[in-house]
Amino acid sequence: MNILCDKSKLIEGINIVLKAVPGKSTMAILECIVIDVKENTIKLIANDLQLGIETTIEGNIIEEGSVAVNAKIFSDIIRKLPSDDVKITVDENYTIFIECGKAKFNIAAKSTEEFPFLPSIIKDNNIQISQFTLKDIIRQTVFSISDNENTKVMTGELFEVNGSTLKVVSLDGHRISIRKVDLKKEYEKISVIIPGKTLIEISKILNGGLDDEVNIFFTDKHVLFEFDNTVVLSRLIEGEYYKIDKMLSTDYETKITVNKKEMLECIDRTTLLLKESDKKPVIIDIKDNSMGFAMNSSVGSMAEEIDAEKEGKDILIGFNPRFLIDALRVIDEEEITLYMINPKAPCFIRDKDETYIYLILPVNFNA
Amino acid sequence: MNILCDKSKLIEGINIVLKAVPGKSTMAILECIVIDVKENTIKLIANDLQLGIETTIEGNIIEEGSVAVNAKIFSDIIRKLPSDDVKITVDENYTIFIECGKAKFNIAAKSTEEFPFLPSIIKDNNIQISQFTLKDIIRQTVFSISDNENTKVMTGELFEVNGSTLKVVSLDGHRISIRKVDLKKEYEKISVIIPGKTLIEISKILNGGLDDEVNIFFTDKHVLFEFDNTVVLSRLIEGEYYKIDKMLSTDYETKITVNKKEMLECIDRTTLLLKESDKKPVIIDIKDNSMGFAMNSSVGSMAEEIDAEKEGKDILIGFNPRFLIDALRVIDEEEITLYMINPKAPCFIRDKDETYIYLILPVNFNA
Repeated sequence: MNILCDKSKLIEGINIVLKAVPGKSTMAILECIVIDVKENTIKLIANDLQLGIETTIEGNIIEEGSVAVNAKIFSDIIRKLPSDDVKITVDENYTIFIECGKAKFNIAAKSTEEFPFLPSIIKDNNIQISQFTLKDIIRQTVFSISDNENTKVMTGELFEVNGSTLKVVSLDGHRISIRKVDLKKEYEKISVIIPGKTLIEISKILNGGLDDEVNIFFTDKHVLFEFDNTVVLSRLIEGEYYKIDKMLSTDYETKITVNKKEMLECIDRTTLLLKESDKKPVIIDIKDNSMGFAMNSSVGSMAEEIDAEKEGKDILIGFNPRFLIDALRVIDEEEITLYMINPKAPCFIRDKDETYIYLILPVNFNA
Repeated sequence: MNILCDKSKLIEGINIVLKAVPGKSTMAILECIVIDVKENTIKLIANDLQLGIETTIEGNIIEEGSVAVNAKIFSDIIRKLPSDDVKITVDENYTIFIECGKAKFNIAAKSTEEFPFLPSIIKDNNIQISQFTLKDIIRQTVFSISDNENTKVMTGELFEVNGSTLKVVSLDGHRISIRKVDLKKEYEKISVIIPGKTLIEISKILNGGLDDEVNIFFTDKHVLFEFDNTVVLSRLIEGEYYKIDKMLSTDYETKITVNKKEMLECIDRTTLLLKESDKKPVIIDIKDNSMGFAMNSSVGSMAEEIDAEKEGKDILIGFNPRFLIDALRVIDEEEITLYMINPKAPCFIRDKDETYIYLILPVNFNA
């Protein structure tokens, strides 16, 4: 193998595939990036067996070939090279020679024989969505997946396509986050559970452009994202997702509209009195024109109120402040509306068209 | 106690005294900031018994008094308040009430009875230096103090005043860093060892202004820095400092002048092949017009060379790359000159006027 690439293009590619390199693995080959040069393309590939990423980079090919090189060492070296063209050659013993300016590196690498290349996928079932929207809906839902591997289904997100609507759902037993977006055309029904980790890594790679499209292909076992020069392949989570429709309700006894930033800052301040192990709720007191927040902990107490527009009954209700903060942080609107029934029933934060719905269970407290 | 301060002034003051709050202490009172209001001034004070800091902040005094409040909780709360005036009142049970905008906090604090207020110091022996210079000489020497508490003297820096020259020295057994600066006038002889930790914290607080002066007062046991509205008092390290003059020499067999940035980047790249536990030296090969760098480790090998201007003999010499990097990083000149005698004798990096001298011991290697 013998190639010549621009340092910055090489780093761009490395940064993308690094997302699929596991921190530690019992299989040394998985800690590698593969450089695969054939058919006039230079591909970088990494695969942790759940998530595989391939990206094509520009460069001059002098000789084809492939090699697997430890991802950390390789990326550290490339990053610190002078800004210049990088020449990478590999000899028959899989020693990589990296030359750039006057710097010459020489590191032991591996054959790609044992590397799990990405399987090929039948691409017949797909949707198209902008990078901007995909990145957005991941950000607005992924915080409420569970990290408990015993309820595997909760560690992923439901992606459900129905006609021209994509609905994305995550839940962790205390709260549910739902985002709905309109697609540009009608598609066949799709319902899959995509691992949260895949979505988190994808959203880091997406440039987020409004006019840049992502093609998402679905099979029984896999989901494949195709965008720019990159392909991300992930296993799906098997199993049935929760039936959430029964948990949603549009009834309410109290409806309150407030400034989101004000509410977020208030709740943020209530958490200052919590030590890490503390599970004290923030107590919310909704009256005619105000929403009050109170916290009592071993450290001290705190109270604050903000202006609010209320319909319906007064209510005194307690929440895990973290759950409210998580939801408020990802809502982009300036004003938000909360719907409540009683201090034991879920609270809903949603917009008129239900493009987003955040359901949060209240917690008990001693008034 | 009852005061009214601007939030940003309060935070500025808190950030200064926080430098003297220990991370963890067996004495809860040391984890506190004292707010001491008397004689028309509001002082914030912290003291970890080695290092004590007092700073005066602006504000309206409604009632004098004093209180000790947990530094972390207090600073977290003030930081998250709205940008507004902050009202702080303390009742007879040492409960602090903090009010800002519509937010009201209420936290348990302590009497200042047990707090170690800063002792008063006889201010008869002092020097004056600009904040800029003090900050600079600390940055340029403090990296080579030792963190080994068994050789206490090495954990500090020698500050020596002789006539109108201030000389600052640090050493750790492998290297010596020396900075000399001219003071604006002649002073009596002073020779003290200031703890490295004090200097590191001081340099974080100094604004670094060229026209802002620091007064440094010396006693047998203490050093006191006075600048802006702040006083920093530190214990000195007792004991005799090393006689370094015998270790310095101006003889050389090889003198080489190189571009500092190029040399630094080369050495930086040699360290890419080192795992954390590795102690491999960088081998430097000095020939007529070039300075070559080579590294061999279990990961691979690396070689690079830069242009250089040499006088005297060729030399092949090994160094701990870390030590070279540390010295090169703090030198501001574009070009530097290194002086060597043989592969077993110390290397000197110094400017013509010896305003800085970095002595670094070479290491053995197998050629």
